[in-house]
Amino acid sequence: MSIAESATPALLLDVSKVAHNLARLRARLAPFGVTLRPHMKTAKSADVFVHLVGAGTPITVSTLKEAEVYAAAGAKDVTYAVGITPDKLDRVGALRMAGCAVSVILDSVAAAEAVAAWSRERGDRLPAFIEIDVDGERAGLQPERAAEIVAVGRALEDGGAELRGVLTHSGGSYAVPGEAAIAAMAETERAAVVAAAGTLRAAGLPCPVVSVGSTPTALFARDLTGVTEVRAGVFMFQDLVMAGLGVCAVEDIALSVLASVIGHQRDKGWTLIDAGWMAMSRDRGTAALPVDQGYGLVCDAAGTPFPDHIVIKASQEHGVIAPRPGSGAAPLDLPVGARVRVLPNHACATAAQFGEYLLVDAETPGEVTGTASRFNGW
Amino acid sequence: MSIAESATPALLLDVSKVAHNLARLRARLAPFGVTLRPHMKTAKSADVFVHLVGAGTPITVSTLKEAEVYAAAGAKDVTYAVGITPDKLDRVGALRMAGCAVSVILDSVAAAEAVAAWSRERGDRLPAFIEIDVDGERAGLQPERAAEIVAVGRALEDGGAELRGVLTHSGGSYAVPGEAAIAAMAETERAAVVAAAGTLRAAGLPCPVVSVGSTPTALFARDLTGVTEVRAGVFMFQDLVMAGLGVCAVEDIALSVLASVIGHQRDKGWTLIDAGWMAMSRDRGTAALPVDQGYGLVCDAAGTPFPDHIVIKASQEHGVIAPRPGSGAAPLDLPVGARVRVLPNHACATAAQFGEYLLVDAETPGEVTGTASRFNGW
Repeated sequence: MSIAESATPALLLDVSKVAHNLARLRARLAPFGVTLRPHMKTAKSADVFVHLVGAGTPITVSTLKEAEVYAAAGAKDVTYAVGITPDKLDRVGALRMAGCAVSVILDSVAAAEAVAAWSRERGDRLPAFIEIDVDGERAGLQPERAAEIVAVGRALEDGGAELRGVLTHSGGSYAVPGEAAIAAMAETERAAVVAAAGTLRAAGLPCPVVSVGSTPTALFARDLTGVTEVRAGVFMFQDLVMAGLGVCAVEDIALSVLASVIGHQRDKGWTLIDAGWMAMSRDRGTAALPVDQGYGLVCDAAGTPFPDHIVIKASQEHGVIAPRPGSGAAPLDLPVGARVRVLPNHACATAAQFGEYLLVDAETPGEVTGTASRFNGW
Repeated sequence: MSIAESATPALLLDVSKVAHNLARLRARLAPFGVTLRPHMKTAKSADVFVHLVGAGTPITVSTLKEAEVYAAAGAKDVTYAVGITPDKLDRVGALRMAGCAVSVILDSVAAAEAVAAWSRERGDRLPAFIEIDVDGERAGLQPERAAEIVAVGRALEDGGAELRGVLTHSGGSYAVPGEAAIAAMAETERAAVVAAAGTLRAAGLPCPVVSVGSTPTALFARDLTGVTEVRAGVFMFQDLVMAGLGVCAVEDIALSVLASVIGHQRDKGWTLIDAGWMAMSRDRGTAALPVDQGYGLVCDAAGTPFPDHIVIKASQEHGVIAPRPGSGAAPLDLPVGARVRVLPNHACATAAQFGEYLLVDAETPGEVTGTASRFNGW
C-alpha cells in the first residue's frame, strides 16, 4: 500500500528511525556496563517489542495491561514502575505464576507491608524497589529521609518480600534544554539514588539494583558509577519535546500523523487538515520550550519537514496549519485531499490516540511496508 | 460489582445524569420546533446510542468510523460534520447502499465538484451541506462571501449532488462564560447561518435544512427563527469546561475517572493517584476560564465533589491531588488503595482515553450497574 492510499488520519512509525534511536542509546550506554531496561509505555505494541526491541529484553512498563501484553509476547523480566496498590497484586502474581518475573515499586511502609503480607500469603517473595524522589516532581522518598528508606526496606525484607533495590525517574529533566544542563541533572539523579542505595546497605539491607531513567539523562549522563540499570522510553520514537531540549534531531523522530487537507481559510493563510487533537492529542509540551511547535510540525507526505509550518490550533477532528508566527513563510499551497505528516509534541500522548501503526521506512518514503498492533487501556 | 472492587483507572458514566442532560436539552428546544441531531462524538458508544439516546435518533458524527458503528447499531440518518475529502466518499457510499442516509459537509467549489462527480459516477445523489463560518474559529465560508456560497451550491446541484442546506458550529461559544454572552453568541450564529440560507434561496437554490450547533448556544439560544435543526454533543455528559461557562452545574457531569491512591508527599500536601494524563487526557480547557480545575476536580468514591481539591499536575500514569491554590483547604487524608473520582475538563477528550464505560447511577453510588462499549479511531 502507498501512503497516498492510506485512510487518514493514521499513525506512521518509521522503523529505520526506531532502529537508529535504539542503537544510539545502546551505544551510548555500552561503556558504562549498565543494563538498558527500555520503557515500553510509548510503543504499547507487542509487534514493536518482539520485532524492533527484541522479546528477550528486560523492560519497564507503566500499566499492568502492558505487563500482560508483553508477557504474552515473550517478556520474562518486567518492572511495573508505578506505585503498587494492594488490589493490583493478584494480577502481578498471575503473571509471575505464568513465568514472567514482574517486580513492583513503592515508597511507604504501608505499601511495603501490604506487599510483604501478599508475599507470605502466596508463598511468592515479590521483588520490590523503593522509589526515590530526586527532583521533587512526583512520587518517592527523598534520599535524605534515611530512616524511612530503611524502614521500608526492613518491612519488605523482614516481612517476606524481596528488596530488589532503589529506582528513580528524573522527570525534571524534561524541563532543562541543552546537553550541559541535562548532564548536570543526570549527575543529580545518579548521586541521589546511589546515596539511597548506600543508606540501605549501611543498614545491612540488600540493594542489588540501582535504577535510573529518563530519555534526556540516559543520553547525556557522563558518569553512572553505582548505577546498575537505565530505563528510558520516549527515546525509541523521539518527539518535538526531545528535539526542543536538544536530546535528538528533528530527523530522528520516528512517529508522525498522516493527515489530509480538508479545506482552507486563504485570507488567514490557513490550511485545514483532518488531524485535530483526537489524532495529535492535547499535549502541548513544546509550549514551555524556546520553540513552540503548536500541535505539531508539518512535513510533506514523504516526511520532510516544512520548517516553518505548524499546527497552530486544533479542535476534535480539525487541525489548522499556518506559518509559524513571525517566520514570514508563505502559506502552504496544497489542494483538498493532499497528504501531509505532522510530527508530535509528545510521542507517548500522540501514539495513545491510535490503535495501530502503519510502518514506513525513510528509505522508501512513499510506501507503507506493514502494520504493527497497538493497545491502550489498563 | 461494587466501585470498590473495580480495577483503576476506570471510566464511570452516570446514566441518570445522561438522562437528565438529554431531557434538559430536549425540553429546552421543544418550543422552537427544531430537530435535535445530537453529536455522538463524545460518547462513541453503540450502547449509549441505542439505550440512552435512542437508535431512531438522527445524529451527527465526527468520523466515518462513528458513522459505521452507529449505522450498524441502527442509525438511519447521519451527518458527517467534518469537511469531506474525495477519498472518503466510497466509505460514505457503502453506508448509503446499506440503508443509512449519510450526508457530508464542504466549503469549496473544488470539494463540491468532487462530490458531484462521485454522485454522477455512482448514481447516488449525495446530500451535502455548505459549511458556514460564523466566528472565524475554523472551517466554512463566511456568510458575506455570497458569490462563493452560491457557486458551491450550484456546483452541487448542477453537478448531480444534492444541496441539503447550510451548517455551522459556533466553536467560539466555548470561550464566553455566562448566559447573556452565550445567548448573544447564539444569536450571531443564528443570524449568520440564516443569512447564508437566504443567499442560496435568493439565487434560486434549495436550502431545506439550516443547522446550528454547540452545547452552549443550544442551551441558551433565545430565538431560533429560520433554524431547522440543532446539533450538540458534550451536553450529554457535560464537563468542567461547561460548568465553568455556566452551561451546567457540576452535579450534572455524568463522566468521571475512578482512581486509586498510590502514595503521598505529605510535606507538600500531595496525594498521588493512578490517573495521570493517560486517563484524564492532556486537555486543560479550564485553564482559560475563571476557575482553573487543573487536570480535574476530585470527588469521593460516591461522586460527591471535594470543592477545593484538584489534580494539580499529571504525568503519564500519575496524578497529583492537592488543595486548590489559595483555598486554605486541608490535604486529603486517604490511605494507599482508597478510591476517588475525578471530573474531567473535557468529556470528549477524557472519554477517548478509555475503551469501555462502567455504568453507575447517582441513586446507587457504590455500585457498578453494567458496562457500555466504547470505540476510538477513524
